[in-house]
Amino acid sequence: MPLVGVIMGSDSDLAIMKETISQLKAFGITYEVKILSAHRVPDETARYAREAGKKGLKIIIAGAGAAAHLAGVVASHTILPVIGVPLEGSPLKGIDSLCSTVQMPAGVPVATMGIGKSGAKNAAILACEILALKDKKMEKKLISLKKEMVIKIKKKNKNLHI
Amino acid sequence: MPLVGVIMGSDSDLAIMKETISQLKAFGITYEVKILSAHRVPDETARYAREAGKKGLKIIIAGAGAAAHLAGVVASHTILPVIGVPLEGSPLKGIDSLCSTVQMPAGVPVATMGIGKSGAKNAAILACEILALKDKKMEKKLISLKKEMVIKIKKKNKNLHI
Amino acid sequence: MPLVGVIMGSDSDLAIMKETISQLKAFGITYEVKILSAHRVPDETARYAREAGKKGLKIIIAGAGAAAHLAGVVASHTILPVIGVPLEGSPLKGIDSLCSTVQMPAGVPVATMGIGKSGAKNAAILACEILALKDKKMEKKLISLKKEMVIKIKKKNKNLHI
Amino acid sequence: MPLVGVIMGSDSDLAIMKETISQLKAFGITYEVKILSAHRVPDETARYAREAGKKGLKIIIAGAGAAAHLAGVVASHTILPVIGVPLEGSPLKGIDSLCSTVQMPAGVPVATMGIGKSGAKNAAILACEILALKDKKMEKKLISLKKEMVIKIKKKNKNLHI
Amino acid sequence: MPLVGVIMGSDSDLAIMKETISQLKAFGITYEVKILSAHRVPDETARYAREAGKKGLKIIIAGAGAAAHLAGVVASHTILPVIGVPLEGSPLKGIDSLCSTVQMPAGVPVATMGIGKSGAKNAAILACEILALKDKKMEKKLISLKKEMVIKIKKKNKNLHI
Amino acid sequence: MPLVGVIMGSDSDLAIMKETISQLKAFGITYEVKILSAHRVPDETARYAREAGKKGLKIIIAGAGAAAHLAGVVASHTILPVIGVPLEGSPLKGIDSLCSTVQMPAGVPVATMGIGKSGAKNAAILACEILALKDKKMEKKLISLKKEMVIKIKKKNKNLHI
Amino acid sequence: MPLVGVIMGSDSDLAIMKETISQLKAFGITYEVKILSAHRVPDETARYAREAGKKGLKIIIAGAGAAAHLAGVVASHTILPVIGVPLEGSPLKGIDSLCSTVQMPAGVPVATMGIGKSGAKNAAILACEILALKDKKMEKKLISLKKEMVIKIKKKNKNLHI
Amino acid sequence: MPLVGVIMGSDSDLAIMKETISQLKAFGITYEVKILSAHRVPDETARYAREAGKKGLKIIIAGAGAAAHLAGVVASHTILPVIGVPLEGSPLKGIDSLCSTVQMPAGVPVATMGIGKSGAKNAAILACEILALKDKKMEKKLISLKKEMVIKIKKKNKNLHI
Repeated sequence: MPLVGVIMGSDSDLAIMKETISQLKAFGITYEVKILSAHRVPDETARYAREAGKKGLKIIIAGAGAAAHLAGVVASHTILPVIGVPLEGSPLKGIDSLCSTVQMPAGVPVATMGIGKSGAKNAAILACEILALKDKKMEKKLISLKKEMVIKIKKKNKNLHI
Repeated sequence: MPLVGVIMGSDSDLAIMKETISQLKAFGITYEVKILSAHRVPDETARYAREAGKKGLKIIIAGAGAAAHLAGVVASHTILPVIGVPLEGSPLKGIDSLCSTVQMPAGVPVATMGIGKSGAKNAAILACEILALKDKKMEKKLISLKKEMVIKIKKKNKNLHI
Repeated sequence: MPLVGVIMGSDSDLAIMKETISQLKAFGITYEVKILSAHRVPDETARYAREAGKKGLKIIIAGAGAAAHLAGVVASHTILPVIGVPLEGSPLKGIDSLCSTVQMPAGVPVATMGIGKSGAKNAAILACEILALKDKKMEKKLISLKKEMVIKIKKKNKNLHI
Repeated sequence: MPLVGVIMGSDSDLAIMKETISQLKAFGITYEVKILSAHRVPDETARYAREAGKKGLKIIIAGAGAAAHLAGVVASHTILPVIGVPLEGSPLKGIDSLCSTVQMPAGVPVATMGIGKSGAKNAAILACEILALKDKKMEKKLISLKKEMVIKIKKKNKNLHI
Repeated sequence: MPLVGVIMGSDSDLAIMKETISQLKAFGITYEVKILSAHRVPDETARYAREAGKKGLKIIIAGAGAAAHLAGVVASHTILPVIGVPLEGSPLKGIDSLCSTVQMPAGVPVATMGIGKSGAKNAAILACEILALKDKKMEKKLISLKKEMVIKIKKKNKNLHI
Repeated sequence: MPLVGVIMGSDSDLAIMKETISQLKAFGITYEVKILSAHRVPDETARYAREAGKKGLKIIIAGAGAAAHLAGVVASHTILPVIGVPLEGSPLKGIDSLCSTVQMPAGVPVATMGIGKSGAKNAAILACEILALKDKKMEKKLISLKKEMVIKIKKKNKNLHI
Repeated sequence: MPLVGVIMGSDSDLAIMKETISQLKAFGITYEVKILSAHRVPDETARYAREAGKKGLKIIIAGAGAAAHLAGVVASHTILPVIGVPLEGSPLKGIDSLCSTVQMPAGVPVATMGIGKSGAKNAAILACEILALKDKKMEKKLISLKKEMVIKIKKKNKNLHI
Repeated sequence: MPLVGVIMGSDSDLAIMKETISQLKAFGITYEVKILSAHRVPDETARYAREAGKKGLKIIIAGAGAAAHLAGVVASHTILPVIGVPLEGSPLKGIDSLCSTVQMPAGVPVATMGIGKSGAKNAAILACEILALKDKKMEKKLISLKKEMVIKIKKKNKNLHI
C-alpha cells in the first residue's frame, strides 16, 4: 500500500514532478502517481482526496500550474497533510500558481514548496520528514541526505580551480 | 425562481458583493445569495454548482479573495457561465485572487471581473448582457444604463467649476 | 450570419487566437474574424462594436497584448457580452495586457480570460456556455466537452508508467 | 482659446489632477477641463480628441485609473501630443493604470508621467516644455522653475537643524 | 514536553503569531514559544534547531517578515518538518517574506503558509494534520474542525438577510 | 543642425533604438545619435543636456535599461522635452527601467514610452507630434502615418483566410 | 571633519533618514546632512559627490524615493562607497526606488539597503563596518551592537508570558 | 592572505560570479573562492563567517539565487562588510533573490548589488572602493576604471556609423 499520493494536473507536469518521484524512490517511500485536475475531473479529484486516508495514504503531494487549485481542493476534502508544488505552466512563470497554492484561507492549509524543480524535490523530502517522526529508517535517510549535501559541497570546493 | 446565483466565500465579503446585488436589483434580475467556500464547504459548493442549471439558474457570480478557488471550482461542476470577482482579502491586495480566478486551464473558463467594487458591480452588468441576448427588457435596461452614464458625465461637466 | 465576432489587434495574434477559432469550429458556432485595433483603427473598431448587435452577432471575443484596450473599447460601444483575451505581446509577458483588460471601471465589464493559449480556447467555451442558455445543441456540446476531459485524463492515467 | 485640454475619467480624479491645473495656471497656460471616459462616454471622448486640433488645442493631458484607456484612446484620434497621468484608482495602486497608459503599441504614443500627484504636476511642466519650443515666455517660466527648485533646496538646507 | 516549537523574529510578531498559538491550544497540542532571529541571534537559532529533535519537539513553526530567513535557517539544522509563516513586516507587504520563505533550494524544504493571519492559523492546523497521522485524538479534532466550518457557514447562510 | 538628439547607454542598445532612428528618418526629421551614460560618463551627459538647447536641439530621446537614470538625469539639466525609452537590459525584463524612467519627482518630467521596440518607435512619433505643432509638413506626415495604419489593417483583413 | 555624508532628496525624507543619523551618532561617527536631489539640483549634487573625497568624507549614504536616482548619480561622480536607501515615497511603495537604486550598470555600484526604516538604520551600520576595517573603536561598537541584539532578545524571551 | 572572500551557493553560480573574480583579479585584490550554502552546509557557512575577520579577510561577497539567505546568514556571524549578489536561479528571475538579500532587518546590513552579471562585477568594484579608503593603489585603480569607462564610450561614439 503506497504512503504518498503524487498527483498532478496533466501528464506534461511529469517533466517536473518526476523530481518528487525519484526522490521518494531514493528514500524507499512507497507512492502512487495520478493525473487529477481540480477543474477537469473535479469529482474524481474529490473522491481521491476523500478516500486517501482510508486507503492508507499518509501524505498527498499535488503539483499544478496557473490558477493552481489542485492542492487546495484536495486539502478541502482530507485531513491528511497536503503538500503543494506550484509549477511554471503559464506566461506568468509561476507567480500565479504560487499565489493560488499558498494563499489558502484559515482552516485549510497547503504546505507550499518553491516553484518548479526545487519545490518538486523538496515535496518528497518534506514527506520524508513527516514520516520520519515515527519511522527511524526515514530519520536515517534524512540524516544521510544532510551529510551527502555536506560531502558534495566539500568535493565541489576541492575541484574548484580558479 | 432566481436567474442568478451570487455566492461568496464569507459573509464579510458582502461589503463588496452588495455592489453585485444592488445592481441586479436595479435591473430587476432575480437572484439568490449564498455563502459557499471551495475550501470550507467543498461538498455543498460542488452540489450547488451541479444543481444550479437544473434549478433554473442561468449564471453564477462568485466573489472570493486570496487563493480564490471558488469561481474555478464552481465552473468545474457546471456548464453555466461563471463570473468571478476577485476580492482584496489578503495582504497581497487582490493580485493573488486575480491570478487564482483568471488563470484557468483550457477547458474551464471563468469570466473574470476587476478586483473589488468595480468588478462586483460589473459582474451584475455582464450577467444582464448575457440575459439580454434573449430578453428585450434587459436589453433596454442596458441601453438605459449606457445613456445614464452619458448623462451623469454631462452633468458632472456642467457642475465643474475650476 | 455569424454569432461570434473574433477580433484581434494584429494578424500576428492569430498564432494564439486560432485556439479560439478552432474551438468555435469544434462547437459548430458560426463566427467571423477581423483585425481591429483600438489604437490604429479606432473608428472602424467603434463602428464594428456599435453595429455588432444589429448584424446579429451575440458575443465579441477580443484578443490583444500590451496596453490591451481592444476589449474595453469595444465594450464601451456595445451591450453585447465582450470576452477579453490578454496576449503576451510585450516584455512584461502579459501582466500589462491582463491589467488593461480586466481592471475595467464600473459600468463597462469585460469577461476576462487567462493570458495566452488557455485563455484563447476558454473564450470560445465561455461563448458556447452563453449561447447554450438558449440552445440545447450547445448544451450537449459542453456536456460532451466535460466528458471528454474526464475520458482523456482516464486514458492518461492508464498510459502512465512510472 | 485654451492651449491645453485636461481631461479625466471622473470628477473624483480632480483631487489629483488639480496638481496639473494649478501648475498650468502658475505658468499662465490657458486650459480647459473636461470629464471624459473612454468607457462611459466613448463617442464624446472620440469627438473631443478628433476636434481638439481644429479647436486650437496643442496638447491633451489625460488622467485615469485602473484599466486606464483614456490617454491611449484619445491618442488614437489625434496627432496632438497626448500626456497620460496614471492614477491610483484601484486596489492595484496604479500598477494597472501605469501599464494601461504606457505600454502603447507602435504607432500611437502616450507620453506617460509617474503615478499620482507628481505625475499630474509633471504633465503640466512637460506641456510647458513643449510650448516653450516656440514661446520664449514659457522658456523663461521653465528656467525660473528650475531656479526656484535650487533656491528651495538651499533654503531647506539652511533650515536643517540636526 | 512540548510537541511544537513556535518561534518568531520579534515579540511584535506575536500580534499575528498568536493565531498559531491559540489554534494549537484549541487542539490541545503542547507548545513552546521563543523569540529567535536568524540574523540577530544566529547561534541561539542554530542551537535551538539542532536540539529541537532531541528535546522531543516534533514540528517547528517559524514566523518572520521581510528577508524572512528564519524558517529556512532552522530547516538547515534539523530534519524535523519546518512550517514557515511569512509576515507583512515591511513596505513590500509580505511578497518579500513569501519569496524568502518558500523559494528554498532543493534539499531543504520549508512548508510555507499564506502571508499573515490566515497562514499563522493554518500553521497550527498543518501541525495537527502531521501529528494526527499517529494520534487518533488529533484526527478527531481535525474532523471536528472541518465539521464546524460547515456548521458555521450554514449558520451564516441562515442569518443572511438580503 | 539636427532637431532631435537620440542618446542611449550603450551601443548594444542600438538593436532597439534603431526603431527610433529609422522612424525619424522616415519622417525626415534631422537627428544625431550619441552613446551617453548617466553613470559611466556623467559629465559628458550633463554637458550634452545643458548645451542641447543652445545647439538647436528641440527634443532629446533617451533609451536605457536596468536602473535607467539616463532620461531623468538629462531632464534635470535641460528644459527641452525629454522622451524616455525603458529597455529590457536586465533579468527584471524592463520593470526596473520602466520604474526608473517614469516615476520622476514633481518638477522634472520624462515623457515615458513603452518598454522596448514599440516604445522606441513611438518616441520618434511623439517627437514628430511635438514638432508638428509648428510644422505643417510634420503634421502631414503624421496624418499619413495614421492613414497608412488604417490601410495596412484593411489589407491584412483582406488577406485573412481562416 | 565629518566621515559620512548623509544626503536625501527632500526634508520630508528625514522622517526615515533620522534612523541613519541616530545610529551614526550612537556609534560616534561624525557626519553631515544635506538635502540634495539628482533631479532638482543636479549640479550641486554632482559637485558634492566630486568633492566628497577631497573634503575627507569616507562614505556617502543617499536616501531617495520613486525614481530614486540620487545614490546612482552620486556614485557616478565619486570612488567613495555609496550606500543607497530606497524610500517609500510613491504609490508603488518602494519597489520603484528599490529597482532604481539597486539595478546599477556594471562599473558603478551602489550598496543598496532594504526599503525604509530598517534600511536607513542598516546604512549607518554598514558605514560603521567599513570604517571598522581600520578603526578598532568602531570594531568594538559593532561587537557591542551584536551583543546587545542577543541580550535584547533574551530579555524579550524572559518577558514572554503566553 | 586573501582580502576578499567570494562565496556562492553552488558551483553552477560560477558562470555569473566569475565576473566578480575577474574584476578582483584586474584590481590586483587577493581573494579566495568557496562554495558555501546557508541551507546545505550551515555549520561550515557560520564557521567561515565567524572566522573570516580573524583570518584577515576584509570583505565577504556572497552570490546566491532563489530564497538567497547566504549573504544575510553570513552577515549575522561577522562584523565585516558583506556584499550580496542576487542571482537568477529560479523561475522568478531574481526577484526572489533580490528580496531575500536586500530586505534585511535593522541590525544586520547586506550591501546588495543588482541581479546577475552587472551586480557580480559591481561587487568587486565596491570591495575595491572600500579597500581604497586606506590604500592609495586601489584608489588609483578606481580612478583608472572611471577614466576607461569614459574612453570606451568615446571610442564607441567614434565608431558609431548610422
